Amino acid sequence: MAKRTESRAGTSTGRIPIAGLSPRTPDDVFDTKAFVGEVVPFEATVFREGHDIIDAALVVTDPTGAVTRSPMTLGIPGTDRWSTEHLFEVEGTHTWWIEAWNDDWATWMHAAEIKVPAGQDVDNMLALGTELLQRAAQRDPASALFRDGAKALGNASLSATARMRVASDSRIAAALAAQPLASLVTASPKKHVRVERTRAAVGSWYEFFPRSEGAKIRDDGSWTSGTFRTAARRLPAIARMGFDVVYIPPVHPIGRTFRKGPNNTLEAGPNDPGSPYAIGSADGGHDAVDPALGTVADFEWFVGAAKNVGLELALDLALQCSPDHPWVREHPEWFTTLPDGTIAYAENPPKKYQDIYPLNFDNDYEGLSAEILRIVRLWIDRGVTIFRVDNPHTKPVHFWEWLLRDIREDHPEVVFLAEAFTKPAMMQALAQVGFQQSYTYFTWRNEKWELEEYLAELSDETGAWFRPNFFVNTHDILTPYLQYGGVPAYKVRAAIAATASPTWGVYSGYELIENVARPGSEENIDNEKYEFKPRDWAAEEEAGASIAPYLTQLNRIRGQHPALRQLRNLTIHGSDDDAILVYSKFLAGKHTRSGRSDAIIVVANTDPHSARETTVRLDLRALGLEPGSTFTVRDLITQQTWTWTDDNYVRLDSFVEPAHVLSVDFTRTP
Amino acid sequence: MAKRTESRAGTSTGRIPIAGLSPRTPDDVFDTKAFVGEVVPFEATVFREGHDIIDAALVVTDPTGAVTRSPMTLGIPGTDRWSTEHLFEVEGTHTWWIEAWNDDWATWMHAAEIKVPAGQDVDNMLALGTELLQRAAQRDPASALFRDGAKALGNASLSATARMRVASDSRIAAALAAQPLASLVTASPKKHVRVERTRAAVGSWYEFFPRSEGAKIRDDGSWTSGTFRTAARRLPAIARMGFDVVYIPPVHPIGRTFRKGPNNTLEAGPNDPGSPYAIGSADGGHDAVDPALGTVADFEWFVGAAKNVGLELALDLALQCSPDHPWVREHPEWFTTLPDGTIAYAENPPKKYQDIYPLNFDNDYEGLSAEILRIVRLWIDRGVTIFRVDNPHTKPVHFWEWLLRDIREDHPEVVFLAEAFTKPAMMQALAQVGFQQSYTYFTWRNEKWELEEYLAELSDETGAWFRPNFFVNTHDILTPYLQYGGVPAYKVRAAIAATASPTWGVYSGYELIENVARPGSEENIDNEKYEFKPRDWAAEEEAGASIAPYLTQLNRIRGQHPALRQLRNLTIHGSDDDAILVYSKFLAGKHTRSGRSDAIIVVANTDPHSARETTVRLDLRALGLEPGSTFTVRDLITQQTWTWTDDNYVRLDSFVEPAHVLSVDFTRTP
Repeated sequence: MAKRTESRAGTSTGRIPIAGLSPRTPDDVFDTKAFVGEVVPFEATVFREGHDIIDAALVVTDPTGAVTRSPMTLGIPGTDRWSTEHLFEVEGTHTWWIEAWNDDWATWMHAAEIKVPAGQDVDNMLALGTELLQRAAQRDPASALFRDGAKALGNASLSATARMRVASDSRIAAALAAQPLASLVTASPKKHVRVERTRAAVGSWYEFFPRSEGAKIRDDGSWTSGTFRTAARRLPAIARMGFDVVYIPPVHPIGRTFRKGPNNTLEAGPNDPGSPYAIGSADGGHDAVDPALGTVADFEWFVGAAKNVGLELALDLALQCSPDHPWVREHPEWFTTLPDGTIAYAENPPKKYQDIYPLNFDNDYEGLSAEILRIVRLWIDRGVTIFRVDNPHTKPVHFWEWLLRDIREDHPEVVFLAEAFTKPAMMQALAQVGFQQSYTYFTWRNEKWELEEYLAELSDETGAWFRPNFFVNTHDILTPYLQYGGVPAYKVRAAIAATASPTWGVYSGYELIENVARPGSEENIDNEKYEFKPRDWAAEEEAGASIAPYLTQLNRIRGQHPALRQLRNLTIHGSDDDAILVYSKFLAGKHTRSGRSDAIIVVANTDPHSARETTVRLDLRALGLEPGSTFTVRDLITQQTWTWTDDNYVRLDSFVEPAHVLSVDFTRTP
Repeated sequence: MAKRTESRAGTSTGRIPIAGLSPRTPDDVFDTKAFVGEVVPFEATVFREGHDIIDAALVVTDPTGAVTRSPMTLGIPGTDRWSTEHLFEVEGTHTWWIEAWNDDWATWMHAAEIKVPAGQDVDNMLALGTELLQRAAQRDPASALFRDGAKALGNASLSATARMRVASDSRIAAALAAQPLASLVTASPKKHVRVERTRAAVGSWYEFFPRSEGAKIRDDGSWTSGTFRTAARRLPAIARMGFDVVYIPPVHPIGRTFRKGPNNTLEAGPNDPGSPYAIGSADGGHDAVDPALGTVADFEWFVGAAKNVGLELALDLALQCSPDHPWVREHPEWFTTLPDGTIAYAENPPKKYQDIYPLNFDNDYEGLSAEILRIVRLWIDRGVTIFRVDNPHTKPVHFWEWLLRDIREDHPEVVFLAEAFTKPAMMQALAQVGFQQSYTYFTWRNEKWELEEYLAELSDETGAWFRPNFFVNTHDILTPYLQYGGVPAYKVRAAIAATASPTWGVYSGYELIENVARPGSEENIDNEKYEFKPRDWAAEEEAGASIAPYLTQLNRIRGQHPALRQLRNLTIHGSDDDAILVYSKFLAGKHTRSGRSDAIIVVANTDPHSARETTVRLDLRALGLEPGSTFTVRDLITQQTWTWTDDNYVRLDSFVEPAHVLSVDFTRTP
């Protein structure tokens, strides 16, 4: 009889042990994440004493209570590790657990198929099989299959061979595979996955400074700032490049005291606009808009203008103040006051940042955190749905856990991106406590071996909670690789970012190969953070100096290939060259709208100064193909096609095209 | 001020995040283990926002409530991983957690030492330092150190340099290192370690069949069985070899039905004693003693005889029945009854074991488990303190969790050894639910690379719950390595087992190099399980055919070197030869009775047919030595000494001595 056996009273182990549930966060304190449209792999170690055959399923309940069961399959038998996948389709917290059971029919069949032909214990075996079919018939009285099967299997006037033939009927096998004769049914503890909207994990980001767009220098060297109104003219071009998120630095009034001049100099001239990260002036603080950019109404209009061309706005949330910020006067307790009565500026001795007062959360945590919550809610009310959070690792982690949860309760659609470039423990913690996505070490991972290692970590080890946003550059980061790699470097980095991570981003000027650094630094010369930087986009494009068409192509490929809009489906493949990076992304047909599998293979020459030839060695199972298959691949950049198999010759000349983005043609492949 | 800041209400993250606590069991469901005398490594990931200097400590409370604090040290800074060790000295469940805090003095000192000499913000810095010393003085009003220090540091009539000299006073540094000026004190969640008696993890085991010792064949081919009384004569010799546990197979009446004959034949002759694992006859079941061995009183006397020579008895607990077992008649519900009314014997089709009825726990779990509990308690009452559990992986895991916990509550001294040779998931589960120690894959790990991998797994990955018992052979296991490796194989396996694992064991006959297998099998010919096997120990030793002196030497070395009685202190070192295995064990002087560090380096030639020369490459830090040091090592087998450093030439001729067991001479080393 099928009875439900929960854990024995007082034991943590179930009748059938189920352990090692995955995904989970490292300490199992925080829920893992997924997004609408994500295919998530699930695993568990399931085993029992003795030789009986067991089976397992993943059970997922969505926020409405709807239940999905997915059969699991055993990997390498010695591991007792079972796995399956689940496609999440609605937002909200889902509950999941693993159910395991003894498969009584499979257990009997395994023994009967050996013993009956060997004439061993025949009568008992056939009688046991008959009992099992009777049990199936009882469970499903309308079906003749089991009733007739039980009768025939129990018919002593037939030969043992004939009776076993009845038992082996493929319809019985199918029916009992679909609805097993289970016993010792055991459920694992319940776990949760927080499913967020797709944009929390999938998007193409474009950063620009609104004040630069439409900025004009006068003959006397003074500037007219760009505004939300003038900046909006740039939005259609950004949208045409295929981006879906436009990110802008802080829009608040900028302090005067210790304002920074060009190239981070200590003395700003009268025409220098200052860093938008030195927030707060007589014109207001984090709740205000810099009058140079416009009004709050202009800002709201700008959000709408972006939306009209299909762009979602991401606003910077930089929790720090210029000495002129109203909080300094009104709430000195939110800063650190020194013995001489002055407020401590930011420093990392001997470095000092006198234009910035960091917040101190330990004097009035309740007051300060309530104010920040108010600020965040205010901008949400003004239409902001994405915050790029500046330096979250300089604020207490528990504050973020609290803030993000509070916002999530009313506004689950709001996405927070953590701009934390720091040690792994902090970055992982911020992702676990609730940041929807995170900046990464991607800009500093340029060699093949380090990209292989990093992509494996991101897609496999931390994919359940840490969502990478692969920015190829930022207004503060211009790596030596980009400084010295020329156009090939800019193209290959974009190709890798756009295909390896479901979310990637560029800071404006990337398309113009702006690769001159301030001497001795790893940031652009004349950093836009401190000055106006209008660009003549049309002229550059006309001159052929822009890779905007290449970025556009990458975004179009992302749009057409759902496999690229997943993270955990990434597989690293080998090549015989130490600069040729190879990885693929695969999405099975059952998870795509077209019903057709989607597979992209990226082959990238990470050496921007060379042409390289090598053999690419694919693990075809990772592409849903049998080893030894042949298939057609099309380069989505050049439209060339080749017939490929496990091992394939590749030549990549960085000066022509540094990367293949290959689509496997499943229409021609069986 | 030093204030205690627990997690913010409602957040899982503390003010200073503390994550990745170790040791813990994989799913953090079961407590980890330790033993009296064990030095356990503890780790946690501790970090905070910003640049302040933090510190951390391990806090352990023993069962009496006594609290020990151990300062932790940061490993590679980028990892934020802190570690320390704790020596457990009493039995019982200990509670532990990690405490982290901001080190206000170290933070100030770091900034002041940079800023004051640079003339940067001098007055504020000195005033802040003065405040900190005043805080220390307030905390410790009796001490003049802080009071005077605060006065001097605050004395504006002194130069900044002089005031900094006051702050840098080494006595202040020492006092504030011992009792830090802490803020933002944060405690991690609490965890538990179950500390068991030393024997649960450390011991030298010797298995023998009491019926063989004193068994005599008559002229007609019939036998007189050895008894507890005759077997006891062997005990002093076992003790003299340095063993401390004597393990005997089941002592219960043996079934007649389907009794196995010599070499596992199906028909036993009238003189064949049968397998002691076919338990139960008209003379009784698991609560009875085989009359051929003696009475219950004889058994109890035997336990005492063992104890008198320093040996603890381990009894086999084999939960299975011969068809003649009283349970078969009285409790058929504890077995599986087939449709024809017969009881199912053990089988793994097509193999069948007709002399054994396996128990079925799913018909009357409560009744059967209560009876097994009664049996175990009965043997405890008869003096048994160690059970070697036969095939625990063929019984439900939750049953063991319940049984072992129940016994542990009244009898924490009782040790259960799991004889499970099966897949890793089951072996790990049994160890986690409470088995004090486990048989391992050691007998099948003979090559250098697989021993390296396995020793690393056992000492590092699973050392917090899985305690290996390295049996070199058993009455059922005679590997090809031993069959064909001659004396060198027997010696090197014993040397590795005795030094790599705190618990090791041999089955009698090992010392006589009994290496003839039943053809085609991996067990001894004429397996003692089915026959009497008296041996003439004295004659063999006189003839020089016994390696008993070698085993004795190994056990003596174990006794003299506390480093060998630990598991988690094992480090694998390199050698340039693919057969020369190198590992060490180190115990710091603070954890030894002598106060002197103890380090053993084992260099073993795993190829029993060769002489090999190679370079051994040591990681000296793992021996408590600085890289580049020179030191004296003494081979505890041959008493030869050498001067060693990081890289050392070694020649090992298996036909002379297959292994060095080297002791580092810390008396001559600084």
